[in-house]
Amino acid sequence: MTSIPYKIYLPEEEMPKYWYNVKAVMKELPPPFIHPGTMKPCTADDLRPIFCDELIEQELNNTDEYIEIPEEVREYYRMYRPSPLVRAYNLEKLLDTPAEIYFKFEGTNTSGSHKLNSAAAQVYYAKKQGLSSLTTETGAGQWGTALSMACAFYNIPLTVYMVKVSAEQKPYRKAVIETYGGKVVPSPSDTTEIGRKILAENPGTGGSLGCAISEAIETSVKTENCRYVLGSVLDHVLLHQSVIGEETKLACDKYGIEPEMIIGCVGGGSNFGGLVAPFMGDKIRGKNNIEFIGVEPASCPSLTRGKYAFDFGDTGKTTPLIKMYTLGSGFIPSPNHAGGLRYHGMSGIVSKLYNDRYMTARAVEQSKVFEAATAFARCEGILPAPESAHALRVAMDEALKCKETGQKKTILFGLTGTGYFDMAAYMSYNAGTMTDYIPTDADLEKGFATLPKVDL
Amino acid sequence: MTSIPYKIYLPEEEMPKYWYNVKAVMKELPPPFIHPGTMKPCTADDLRPIFCDELIEQELNNTDEYIEIPEEVREYYRMYRPSPLVRAYNLEKLLDTPAEIYFKFEGTNTSGSHKLNSAAAQVYYAKKQGLSSLTTETGAGQWGTALSMACAFYNIPLTVYMVKVSAEQKPYRKAVIETYGGKVVPSPSDTTEIGRKILAENPGTGGSLGCAISEAIETSVKTENCRYVLGSVLDHVLLHQSVIGEETKLACDKYGIEPEMIIGCVGGGSNFGGLVAPFMGDKIRGKNNIEFIGVEPASCPSLTRGKYAFDFGDTGKTTPLIKMYTLGSGFIPSPNHAGGLRYHGMSGIVSKLYNDRYMTARAVEQSKVFEAATAFARCEGILPAPESAHALRVAMDEALKCKETGQKKTILFGLTGTGYFDMAAYMSYNAGTMTDYIPTDADLEKGFATLPKVDL
Repeated sequence: MTSIPYKIYLPEEEMPKYWYNVKAVMKELPPPFIHPGTMKPCTADDLRPIFCDELIEQELNNTDEYIEIPEEVREYYRMYRPSPLVRAYNLEKLLDTPAEIYFKFEGTNTSGSHKLNSAAAQVYYAKKQGLSSLTTETGAGQWGTALSMACAFYNIPLTVYMVKVSAEQKPYRKAVIETYGGKVVPSPSDTTEIGRKILAENPGTGGSLGCAISEAIETSVKTENCRYVLGSVLDHVLLHQSVIGEETKLACDKYGIEPEMIIGCVGGGSNFGGLVAPFMGDKIRGKNNIEFIGVEPASCPSLTRGKYAFDFGDTGKTTPLIKMYTLGSGFIPSPNHAGGLRYHGMSGIVSKLYNDRYMTARAVEQSKVFEAATAFARCEGILPAPESAHALRVAMDEALKCKETGQKKTILFGLTGTGYFDMAAYMSYNAGTMTDYIPTDADLEKGFATLPKVDL
Repeated sequence: MTSIPYKIYLPEEEMPKYWYNVKAVMKELPPPFIHPGTMKPCTADDLRPIFCDELIEQELNNTDEYIEIPEEVREYYRMYRPSPLVRAYNLEKLLDTPAEIYFKFEGTNTSGSHKLNSAAAQVYYAKKQGLSSLTTETGAGQWGTALSMACAFYNIPLTVYMVKVSAEQKPYRKAVIETYGGKVVPSPSDTTEIGRKILAENPGTGGSLGCAISEAIETSVKTENCRYVLGSVLDHVLLHQSVIGEETKLACDKYGIEPEMIIGCVGGGSNFGGLVAPFMGDKIRGKNNIEFIGVEPASCPSLTRGKYAFDFGDTGKTTPLIKMYTLGSGFIPSPNHAGGLRYHGMSGIVSKLYNDRYMTARAVEQSKVFEAATAFARCEGILPAPESAHALRVAMDEALKCKETGQKKTILFGLTGTGYFDMAAYMSYNAGTMTDYIPTDADLEKGFATLPKVDL
């Protein structure tokens, strides 16, 4: 036995009391949101009809490096946090690598992912503001589950627009949301104007995340004392997810672990942004030289093949414009794509950090991702979510490189969740029927054609 | 904040090094197994064609109170143990009870239940003995999953006879087993003599656990260097599960928690037997006066309405006879029964302890069980397995009694697992279509009629 245990659990009293706001340290900030009507930077007042007041304040806070986690939210966190930082001894053995591999495991709560970290915070602030109900969208279903859990706890009614193909393919995920009292509406639906419009233009469509966002926003704006909440992309979501990075850093410091490489999957960017936040702050200040790698699916390659441009967050083109790496809000990944990470754009913070070369990105194909996931499940016991297995894939690739070079690198990756509601994808992999898809340049051009013309 | 944290995680170095063998302390032992051919007590040699050698030794060990957990098994345990002992602060608040409620949560591993504790041990011993393959049966699928995980780790081929109705209703549970490399055969099947016989006699049957056991045993006996492994009922399984009780007791001692009531669900009895083992040892020695309650479904009430008699462990009547509380090996619970805990019999140890009044038992109806499960999920975040929610139901009932009486009782229950693969049952509860079923005396008589005539 080495002195590093399999699982490092911080005691509850050492749980972080502050979220980490990396924007306070960034040398250049991401540009502000642009109001789609005025084409001027959004003010807090512009955002107020859609979002909770305190979340807007956090969204626009570029100066405070540490923002206190309210005691009530920490109380919620105590139900499932701190999450373990795990030394992947068995994976190291399997790969026969001199590298040390660690993963921060966010899948030990019922939502099955890191999403609960922001859901708990957002619903707390909604309750504090005295809101009567909330709306949101969900794709793979992790965010919808997390939010319905938090809404059940704080007793706030929730409507979840769930991408129709996902609601059909994952009836059990839908059932979990309903068990927690959330109302699930498959999207596009006839309950909103934008939904009816999309249905008219694309009869039989399975929907998309961007379309579900449009419907959720429309409903929130039209409903008295209701607000919309989002599970990724926005700065305040990354802020809440920084609890992952804070805990990871505390555990590393406590046990003398010095990661040389931190790897996370990126869809909207909240898990990655949260995991790396405090380490990134140190890197910007010149205190470390960690290599940060965001991993995305080859079928939805916003960082590696997208454009850094102002774009809408949704298909309906109703949200403020965010400068981000994007494939265009009209881009819809191939239906053979199994896991999440199918968002056309990317967090503004992550986009800026990528553009300014504080991090790199890689795109991986899904068959290789499930190969890694299966090997990991068999040796480490945990069945990963397909999303998380993207990061795992690159961690394994890097550990195998170390085997070749003999380097004893310390690799850390985020295992964001479990795959218990993704078994249809595993079945397709097990049956050998899973295929890969890489969009052609022409495919991407179609998406780019939906980018707004913005002259700033 | 009180001084008891939400979740007590023992550090890995404080993990138990010994399993606890309650038989060494029992004033009267359960009678030995009876060989169905000779009608004499089974010897180790009688059992050798079916079971691994070291497991037989453990099965027949009535003298050693502590049996060492091999370092290799502890190594496996470290991947997911120690499991947390949780203070259910939010449930206490919901119930507005003066009682203190704790639960030992075994659902944080991918098998989703406590079953992995015995699977890891059994497969380790199989590997040590140099066996080429293993067979088993699974009902709800938790044991099959756990065993396939352990078999993947130790690299031993596994065939799982899965109750046909369960394999059909839970394709994703089947997929998890297959992801770990287990071969799933829906039972009854045409791959065994007993399966063909049952199919001929009951065309279209959905199968039963007792029938799947018969098929798994037949295959193991007919296959070179293969053995059968069982996930509950037997003494060595309860022994392995005592790691739950050992950890619980260590955590209680460390934090000065003195449970006055320990509650566990009982199907075959392994979780309950494991959870209570070391506390029961102390009770037998007069060192505590804890009330132990086993909770079973009203639709399969082996303790509360069964007979204490010698019976077969399987429908095919091929196993040794065990003296146990049983409904008769021909008893099949109503198809509307949603959760596990559908075994006709009960662990010999638990049966003896129950018969000798060291514990009590209660039967609960499933609609009340799912009501408790849903309330718990909403306030404590964890979506329980239906099985586990039986224990939860009684813990809640007892806490509500304390509210009436004002008693500040310390109640501890076993939350054996998560319900992520039981969403069809939750859907039926959510939709209001779940019904209860209590067998009539006439129904039970049909089962009792299948009891063997044994004159001892």
